Amino acid sequence: MGKKIEKIGVITSGGDAPGMNAAIRAVVRACAYYNIECVGAYRGYQGLIEGDFKILSPRHVSNIINRGGTILKSARSSEFRTKEGRAKAYKEIKKAEIDALVLIGGDGTFTGGMIFNEEYHFPCIGIPGTIDNDIYGTNFTIGYDTALNTVVDVIDKIRDTASSHNRLFFVEVMGRDAGFIALNAGVGAGAEEILIPEEDLGLERLLEALKRSKRSGKSSSIVVVSEGDKIGKNVFELADYVEENLPQYEVRVSVLGHMQRGGSPSCFDRVLATRLGVKAVELLLDGQTNLMVGLLNNKVETTELDHAVKGKHHINKELLRVSDIMSI
Amino acid sequence: MGKKIEKIGVITSGGDAPGMNAAIRAVVRACAYYNIECVGAYRGYQGLIEGDFKILSPRHVSNIINRGGTILKSARSSEFRTKEGRAKAYKEIKKAEIDALVLIGGDGTFTGGMIFNEEYHFPCIGIPGTIDNDIYGTNFTIGYDTALNTVVDVIDKIRDTASSHNRLFFVEVMGRDAGFIALNAGVGAGAEEILIPEEDLGLERLLEALKRSKRSGKSSSIVVVSEGDKIGKNVFELADYVEENLPQYEVRVSVLGHMQRGGSPSCFDRVLATRLGVKAVELLLDGQTNLMVGLLNNKVETTELDHAVKGKHHINKELLRVSDIMSI
Amino acid sequence: MGKKIEKIGVITSGGDAPGMNAAIRAVVRACAYYNIECVGAYRGYQGLIEGDFKILSPRHVSNIINRGGTILKSARSSEFRTKEGRAKAYKEIKKAEIDALVLIGGDGTFTGGMIFNEEYHFPCIGIPGTIDNDIYGTNFTIGYDTALNTVVDVIDKIRDTASSHNRLFFVEVMGRDAGFIALNAGVGAGAEEILIPEEDLGLERLLEALKRSKRSGKSSSIVVVSEGDKIGKNVFELADYVEENLPQYEVRVSVLGHMQRGGSPSCFDRVLATRLGVKAVELLLDGQTNLMVGLLNNKVETTELDHAVKGKHHINKELLRVSDIMSI
Amino acid sequence: MGKKIEKIGVITSGGDAPGMNAAIRAVVRACAYYNIECVGAYRGYQGLIEGDFKILSPRHVSNIINRGGTILKSARSSEFRTKEGRAKAYKEIKKAEIDALVLIGGDGTFTGGMIFNEEYHFPCIGIPGTIDNDIYGTNFTIGYDTALNTVVDVIDKIRDTASSHNRLFFVEVMGRDAGFIALNAGVGAGAEEILIPEEDLGLERLLEALKRSKRSGKSSSIVVVSEGDKIGKNVFELADYVEENLPQYEVRVSVLGHMQRGGSPSCFDRVLATRLGVKAVELLLDGQTNLMVGLLNNKVETTELDHAVKGKHHINKELLRVSDIMSI
Repeated sequence: MGKKIEKIGVITSGGDAPGMNAAIRAVVRACAYYNIECVGAYRGYQGLIEGDFKILSPRHVSNIINRGGTILKSARSSEFRTKEGRAKAYKEIKKAEIDALVLIGGDGTFTGGMIFNEEYHFPCIGIPGTIDNDIYGTNFTIGYDTALNTVVDVIDKIRDTASSHNRLFFVEVMGRDAGFIALNAGVGAGAEEILIPEEDLGLERLLEALKRSKRSGKSSSIVVVSEGDKIGKNVFELADYVEENLPQYEVRVSVLGHMQRGGSPSCFDRVLATRLGVKAVELLLDGQTNLMVGLLNNKVETTELDHAVKGKHHINKELLRVSDIMSI
Repeated sequence: MGKKIEKIGVITSGGDAPGMNAAIRAVVRACAYYNIECVGAYRGYQGLIEGDFKILSPRHVSNIINRGGTILKSARSSEFRTKEGRAKAYKEIKKAEIDALVLIGGDGTFTGGMIFNEEYHFPCIGIPGTIDNDIYGTNFTIGYDTALNTVVDVIDKIRDTASSHNRLFFVEVMGRDAGFIALNAGVGAGAEEILIPEEDLGLERLLEALKRSKRSGKSSSIVVVSEGDKIGKNVFELADYVEENLPQYEVRVSVLGHMQRGGSPSCFDRVLATRLGVKAVELLLDGQTNLMVGLLNNKVETTELDHAVKGKHHINKELLRVSDIMSI
Repeated sequence: MGKKIEKIGVITSGGDAPGMNAAIRAVVRACAYYNIECVGAYRGYQGLIEGDFKILSPRHVSNIINRGGTILKSARSSEFRTKEGRAKAYKEIKKAEIDALVLIGGDGTFTGGMIFNEEYHFPCIGIPGTIDNDIYGTNFTIGYDTALNTVVDVIDKIRDTASSHNRLFFVEVMGRDAGFIALNAGVGAGAEEILIPEEDLGLERLLEALKRSKRSGKSSSIVVVSEGDKIGKNVFELADYVEENLPQYEVRVSVLGHMQRGGSPSCFDRVLATRLGVKAVELLLDGQTNLMVGLLNNKVETTELDHAVKGKHHINKELLRVSDIMSI
Repeated sequence: MGKKIEKIGVITSGGDAPGMNAAIRAVVRACAYYNIECVGAYRGYQGLIEGDFKILSPRHVSNIINRGGTILKSARSSEFRTKEGRAKAYKEIKKAEIDALVLIGGDGTFTGGMIFNEEYHFPCIGIPGTIDNDIYGTNFTIGYDTALNTVVDVIDKIRDTASSHNRLFFVEVMGRDAGFIALNAGVGAGAEEILIPEEDLGLERLLEALKRSKRSGKSSSIVVVSEGDKIGKNVFELADYVEENLPQYEVRVSVLGHMQRGGSPSCFDRVLATRLGVKAVELLLDGQTNLMVGLLNNKVETTELDHAVKGKHHINKELLRVSDIMSI
């Protein structure tokens, strides 16, 4: 059995997401509750490599539950992808007497953790923090719900001007490989069409749908497009294509971009982050490793990090169907 | 088996909740998709009794997905609780050639529907719309997620002034019989203590907790209290009691009240309402009745209306424990 | 002296702005208060040409004070720029027995009104409704304050992710000819640099400022750029240029776009729109014409439409200076 | 002439207001710009008495422009009202080598500053920070605009539920001696009636107005009541009175309370606070004292502290009239 855990390190890594601070806070407070020390490393794995540590007490995480971003900063560390980088990180971790790690991030973060664990048998628990919701082993990742609300709120604003001017808007949202944000925010915003990487609608069907929408008397329309849509055109080309083929439409494009990563987290994300943060600490204290904590069927459950990385979180087919029915 | 469904009626009844409009929209559009008519009745069961109907086409529900309240208005009808009232309602329903009903509301709404169904064998499907989340058969009721965000947003503001002045705030939130809002919003807002009807903390333990909090260096505190807390004192008496016994605290009270029922629904509530609205129509078309649609483990499922009314949606014990850990 | 005013027409024209609905509501209610009729025309001048009118009573404008966009829709009418178009409009206006017009919009809208007045001696009062704040004769245009809050709110979100990742963001905001939004929202969002059309900072000075900012220990930065910045590069070229010359920066671009036109108006914009709407009606009843109502030094004042169009609303030099001091 | 200013102290005192942090940030950055030191004292005058100081560099005020509350905390110090208290404060100030003070707060804060200046000839400049807008010498106090948006946003939510249930709501807002918030937020929220301390409407007229409103077909109504309304009844008594006399109304009460003091400041408040903060520092450097900086006619102007305290900021009569017209 492993050594008794007396000091836990925590990092945030990869793209930042609202609720990461709530997760850090939960890890820190759970450590205090169980009378162990907590240390944060800055800028993800890079902070481990550089020994850029800070002892975190409950006082340090006061009033951060409502803040976007991450007080520990985040980064993608190319150095940690090398054997030498990981060796440096291990040396710094031992020097700091850290016994286990909580890794808050996405696929890349977890892959790093698994390799590190393989090489050094160092206890690691992952917490899924990313707005993309593309992680197997949890129904919801931390930050996803907030991003949906941000997108829906912006599309509500765009709809004001779209319907005042009888325009067609293409709105690009985040999700390079997964259409979770596009599909859910699209349904939530009442979008007429939703284009996602998981489903190749085809340009012809899009034109048909827009023609039908015009015929049915709709004077304005919103099409939500996922960054990673497979239709083979980016959102500007798509807009040009539609404007050429449907001259009755005045088309505009809006790329929402990085604002989707920020903002004060929703209640759902704060509670999720708090539950997962506590569980991560408890698992480490219980001698577990190489697991990701997640929410499955409203219960906190664990998944092997390996499965979390290799598994595929599939889009909800029922919601796709509902989206079609709504666009009548 | 019953007659073919060609016209569906829809009502919103009981306390209003954000997302009711999204549910109405989904019912209307699903009807259009399946080529049947949809009729809305105003002010819940009272509109059925008075024959206060309006044909609803997809055009009527444009741009309502983002609006709080209910375009069909809501009310509690004492007349519908009488045999005569229900007879009048049945007569009006037959006159309007309505074949089935979608009932959006809570316990009281569903009870009315069951009695009506028993007396007239009239197909009824319920959709849980209430901010209280106190319905058995669904993990989430429509409006609950939005109410949580509203509460958390307000407590974030209160915390600004609480921590500027080193004060203790008692914040009363809705939930007469169920502490869902208090517990989840309390955890989400980082409240120091949470008082809910399901758990009698006891005044002594509250004082102890607040003393400990002061000793640990916290300069301000938020205590979230559910309307229906069983501690035997209302929120003002509670505040007085604490101020008398802990003179080191300057105490303030805030009763959030009806604002919790309003506002633009969150993405979660809009998507939930849309999915449940579609399913309700499809169940009626499939010849089903006396069911409530709900979200269980992220799938749309059905529960007998009878069970929905009699069953008890229990508070999450794990979250209670997490809340204790966080208040360290 | 002109004929007694018994029926007033109202249009919204040009780009839509939050608060236009509040202005329409104020015009309608003021008409009711003074016992005259009010008629709305759809899609700006185009609605006048097509006789696309609707009688507006106070009931029609219930619950619109809080909505973005314009219930009367807006458009730019090329037909109204022709003599024939205006003749058609006059014919329709006379047929509908409209005695005077309230024109809600910007420069283009007012120019149209002046020409129409010149040709037909038809009473017209203008209300400045545009997010750009580029109208002479008013300190604030309707929609400007809301747009500032929208921009600041989005930049707050971007800053979360910028500071989590130590990045430099270029954020493009609206304002083709005027830097009001960029300057005020830039100061409000704590931007490190602000690039506006009124002031050619020069690329060299921008690089210098960013270098100094990096040296002073800032780990992330926001540069707000007005659409119409005179620096001779669009925001993407600007970002590339900086990334080439300051490789220590990881640069990202965000173009806010049309969302800036939408959303529920701020209290300031609602009150402003209400005051100006009432005054416009009272001026027409008083036999006035060819005036714009505006807010000067917190009082509702009038300016000749001619001056409003030809005059230049200058940027606040003191605020430019304050902005420099803040970017230390 | 006074001694050269080399170190400036800053406090926030009295009720906190959104934008106080933006003002602190502006003072700190302006000091850095002019190469002088800046010191913050905690909890207003009490911090001066206790020598509870902290050196503030630009780094300390990063990312606070968007936060409600005040990082320097606020309090009302009874000790500073005594000669002994002020003597202690002077001693601490001299010990810390502070040469001048920026006082952010309201009437009480400024009175304290004047007495202190009289006794010790110590340079003091006041910045009006309070949500109440009840200060002579400035059109707008810092925090007022944000409070208006908060109130309007909450009433928008209440209206959702009011109009769903055909109810009459009495909403109490802050403003013990001044009806600025009630009047402006009332107009902005489209309230049917507004009760403010400056104007005794009388109970009879209120009943008349509500009856007329009911007759004209309005199904729901909002009455905004200022805390300090002179009608002689508190908001609950008022509601009871109306319910007794107008049984056709179902009446509810909502007291907004302290949430009005919190929240992220609006762009307007951030820009205002920034401008006033810079000016305060420049005035001190210029050898001035006993002045309040304010915004008059969109320019930063100064008023003798004495006048600011004794003068009366009157409610806008035109807006009262507009409010009557709107309630038709």
